[in-house]
Order: sequence, then structure tokens, then C-alpha cells
Amino acid sequence: MYNVAILGATGVVGQEMLKTLIARKFPVKELKLLASSRSAGTSVTFDGKTYPIEEATPEAFAGIDIVLASAGASVSEKLAPHAVAAGAIVIDNTSFFRMHPDVPLVVPEVNAHHLDQHKGIIANPNCSTAPLVMVLNELRKLAPLRRVVVSTYQSVSGAGKEAMEELREQTRAALNGETHKPEHIVHPIAFNLVPAIDSFLDNGYTKEEMKVTNESRKILDEPDLAVTATAVRVPVYICHSEAVNIEFDRPVSVADARAQLANAEGIELMDDPANNVYPRPMECAGSDPTYVGRLRGDVSHPNGLNLWLVSDNLRKGAALNAIQIAEALVARGLLKARQEVAL
Amino acid sequence: MYNVAILGATGVVGQEMLKTLIARKFPVKELKLLASSRSAGTSVTFDGKTYPIEEATPEAFAGIDIVLASAGASVSEKLAPHAVAAGAIVIDNTSFFRMHPDVPLVVPEVNAHHLDQHKGIIANPNCSTAPLVMVLNELRKLAPLRRVVVSTYQSVSGAGKEAMEELREQTRAALNGETHKPEHIVHPIAFNLVPAIDSFLDNGYTKEEMKVTNESRKILDEPDLAVTATAVRVPVYICHSEAVNIEFDRPVSVADARAQLANAEGIELMDDPANNVYPRPMECAGSDPTYVGRLRGDVSHPNGLNLWLVSDNLRKGAALNAIQIAEALVARGLLKARQEVAL
Repeated sequence: MYNVAILGATGVVGQEMLKTLIARKFPVKELKLLASSRSAGTSVTFDGKTYPIEEATPEAFAGIDIVLASAGASVSEKLAPHAVAAGAIVIDNTSFFRMHPDVPLVVPEVNAHHLDQHKGIIANPNCSTAPLVMVLNELRKLAPLRRVVVSTYQSVSGAGKEAMEELREQTRAALNGETHKPEHIVHPIAFNLVPAIDSFLDNGYTKEEMKVTNESRKILDEPDLAVTATAVRVPVYICHSEAVNIEFDRPVSVADARAQLANAEGIELMDDPANNVYPRPMECAGSDPTYVGRLRGDVSHPNGLNLWLVSDNLRKGAALNAIQIAEALVARGLLKARQEVAL
Repeated sequence: MYNVAILGATGVVGQEMLKTLIARKFPVKELKLLASSRSAGTSVTFDGKTYPIEEATPEAFAGIDIVLASAGASVSEKLAPHAVAAGAIVIDNTSFFRMHPDVPLVVPEVNAHHLDQHKGIIANPNCSTAPLVMVLNELRKLAPLRRVVVSTYQSVSGAGKEAMEELREQTRAALNGETHKPEHIVHPIAFNLVPAIDSFLDNGYTKEEMKVTNESRKILDEPDLAVTATAVRVPVYICHSEAVNIEFDRPVSVADARAQLANAEGIELMDDPANNVYPRPMECAGSDPTYVGRLRGDVSHPNGLNLWLVSDNLRKGAALNAIQIAEALVARGLLKARQEVAL
């Protein structure tokens, strides 16, 4: 049994973490929900049980074994070292530590062995990267990857619960011929697309796009893997979708790719075009697997393969993967269990 | 002055054709609005003027110089030959004749010279192809194209006005916690994505996707051009957007690409990331240009370039391009003007 703290417990990912801990019966001894001073003193009710929210201070981690952090990069930057100093392992869902050489960046189905090198902080990848590397990792077993071109279709929940509410209110306003000013997404998103997520870098890519490139390289242990991404926000509440074009070192048949993905842990093929079956975000929201469909060759390249994936960005893209990391730490003997105390 | 018939005048593209003819002051002598027997006898009011709708029969084309057809492939298949036999030139917005070797497929800024070979029928390209070839045609002036990977984000107006109404009603229902059965788009589209447009082919692509490949090759006169597309329907009313990755024969700088596109007819650069400026469908709807933004290099390939384009699928993707073809026919002396008759 472990003492677990959720840092950012009132956010959309924090809530999903709480839900996932319970659903997966993670052996929690004590649960501490931490958030900013704004939320401290309030409480969260889930599954009939009420959890008080405490303020996330540097001292809040005494006695904690695992911190599931999802309160923003600056909060993780400030508080994760205190949690580690207090003896906890931090599983951080923010981007802050992901590319740090001493921090394993882990999707358990792909690179759980990276956990063995952890020094207290383990990073959870970006919500578009996680499902992508799930699929790339399976397919590279058929042939080496040469180049990947990704276009994302990302839901507003990736920008937090306020962005979900913004989509709802903007849509309602639009249907009534009114306008609702954007606050959480930079431009109106109702019945619209915003081809920019996170801030811009000097090379013209957004940070979100370069996360897909850099994090895929690190997780797959292929530092030179050629990956280019275009990240687009779409008016969908939950689930990120991706159109993925993969160029291999040699031809890979659709049949082989299908067989490989059909047997992969955490991946579900949903690919029956004759019956209009392919993954769609609304239908996949609330599910754990990375769904893959539209698997086909590539008329533009003999070694190419195209596919479409959909994954719940709050689950595999965030909370589920974080809890899976905690489970993998346990399975690998990297977390010492607390003795049961007599109550 | 010319006698013009709009075939499919009550549809969303037919209406846009009427609007565009008037807006561009095309020299119309007589205008005939044709539709199915269902609509015959009704009328359309535009700009204060009322136009009666007549039934589209094989005999309806007597005395007509130009037919702008947008009533579906099967209607064009049946009626276009009658219109040509009656002496008209048919500018067909449907897919039926596009790949026919005797039918020029034309985007005037790109291949107006193909019009000289017409035999009565001229095809208007698919609404995703038109803006794409506008951009590819400019960029190939800098270096030969080697391969193009496209992911589309296509609005529901591409599926007709009933699909636009369906998005509206489904969205309204979803906001009220109700459901609205899909009829015009195969799956629910409100707050969702449908990664399939038109029917599936044996190679796993949809017809819509292969239109992008095949039509681009024909318009650009590059029969072996490597193009692969993934076509996705998004909950947007008007404008198709595309994430485009282009591989050239040699490196092309972003600066050169920017200069080339900035000076191109029919293209408008909207590319100032520092100020969050990039094209978005809601803001570009109702405009003629093909908007280009997110221009950047390609971290996955030394000869690569990425961009994002948005274009009004009812305008450049349909009605505007059709009227531009008519204008080009006039400019090239391929249409004989009718004498003014004394009234």
C-alpha cells in the first residue's frame, strides 16, 4: 500500500487520475489531494466519497510515496524537487522535466525499462505523443522507421476544463447568433479550427508540435527519428486524433501491420471500412485503448503506410499512463510498500 | 453576353454560383436556373431579384451557352451530353468527368491552357484539390515536387446544405443532452470527427482521398506526382483546411516559399505566428483566396516544407473556380458572344 498525492487535483487530469486510481484498484493507503491555495479548503466528491483539498506547499509531501503531478509546468518545476527530497517518486504529467536527461519519459507498454534509471522524477509524455509511440513501437517491430508525418486533431480538454466550458458556451452562443469571447483558447473554437497549440518556437513549429518529435525520439530510444507534426485544435471535447503517415526502411504490408497491431497490448484495431467502422473521438472518449483504423498502404511511397488513431487524451494521454507508470514501478520493485499500520 | 444555366440551382454550390456570377459581373444575357422536378416551379430570390426554378430535362439547354453544373455526378452524367449536343459548354462541378481524358480539369491560375483542348465539357476539381494545386503550382516554381502528404479538415458544407443543417441540429441536441440521428453524414459530426468522406476503394483510401491524388496529377500535368491524402470531416460549416507536408527535389527555404506565395494570384499569406495569425476556417469563410499560414521547414526532411491552408470550399473549391473557368473561356476566345437583341 502506498501514500499517494495528486498535485493539481481539481483539474480535469487530476480528476481523471483520482478516478483511474480507484478504477484500477491501485493499492492506495492514504490519498492526499493537493491544489493551489485558491482551491484549498474545498473538497472533491467521487464515487460517494468526499476528499478534502489541501494546499500544495513544499511541505505537503511528508510521508508521501508517489506524487501524480498535473498542475502545470511551473508548479512541477517548483514542487517536484521538494517531493523528491521528502522521499517521494514524482510522476509528472507536465512538460517541464520531459526532456531532462535524468528523467525517464515513459509509456509503460513501450519503455518501462527506462524506469530503472529514475532519480525521483518520471515524466508522462504529451497527450499526442503517448498514443503515437504506442503505434510506432509496434510497427517498428516489422521494419525500421524512417520518417513519420503526423497531423493532429486535438480536443479542447487538452487545454483544461475551462476550455471545455468555453467550447460549450461559444457553441451555444454561435447557435443563437451571439458571440462568446475566447479566453482559454486563443481564437474562437466553436465550429472552427485553431492550427496552433502552445507557443511558437523559432523554427516555426509550436512547442506542442516539437514535443511530438522530441518525446517520440526519447521514448523510442531513436534520437534521430525523423518526425514532423502539425498540431491543430478542433471543436471536440475529449480524445485526440491523428492522421499518421509512416515511411519504413522497407515495404510493410497492411496485413502484417494489422496483425501486429491486433495483438498489441493497449491498442485496439477499429478498422472495417466496408461497414464504416473507424475510430471517432466521441465514440472513443472514456476508453483506455489507443484505437487504430484507416490502415492502408501509401500511393505516394512504396515503403509507406497510413493510419488514423484516436485516443482519450485524459486517459492514455495523461491519467491512465501516469497510473500505469506507478503500477510499473510497483511491478519492477522500484517502490517500497508501506507497512500496514494497525488502525 | 452569354446565356447561362445553373444546373442544381437550389443546392449550396448552385446558390453560390448564382451569387458569384452576379458579384463578378459575369456578362449574363439570360439566366436559367435548373433543378430536379421536386424544386421545379419554386423560385430563388437573390439580391432582391426572383429567379424561377425550371426542371432540368435533356431539352432544357436549347439556346444556352454555358452550363454550370452542380447537381450530382449522376445528373451530370445524364444531362451534360445533352447540353453539349445543344451547343453549350458545360463546366461541371461533379466528379463524374474529371478524370476523363477528353475533359480538361482546370484551376485557371494553374492550367487555363488546358481549356484550349476542351470538347464541350470542362471539369471543376474537388474542393480539397483546388486550393492544394494553387499552392503546389506556385511552390514547384522553386523546385520540383517529389512527394506531398496531406491531411484534410473538411467542413460539412462539402456534403451539402442538409449536412450543414444536420451539424446545427445535432449540435443543438448535444448541448441539450439529446441526440439527433445522422442522415447526411454517416456518423454523428457534432463535437466529433468522421475520418471518411465518400465511399471506400479497394486500396483502403476513400474516393475523396484518391481525388486529391489523381486530380492534382492531372491539373499539374505531373502524372507520377506522389501525393497521399487522409480526408476527415470536421464540425465546421464552411472552408476546408489542409495540413500539407511537401518534399521537394532539393531544399527550398521558407523565405523563398513565402516570397513566391506572397506574389501569387489567388493566394493570400496569413502567416504571422508571433501575433497568432494563421488562417482559420470561420474567419476565411466567404472569401475568395486560398489562405496559407504556418509556413515552416521540416525537421524530418532537409527538402521538406510544412504549411497549413484554408479555402472556402464553396468558392475556390466550387463556385468561384467554375465562374473563373467561364471567364477564362471568354478571355481565351473560346466562347462566342451572343448578339444583343433589341428588346
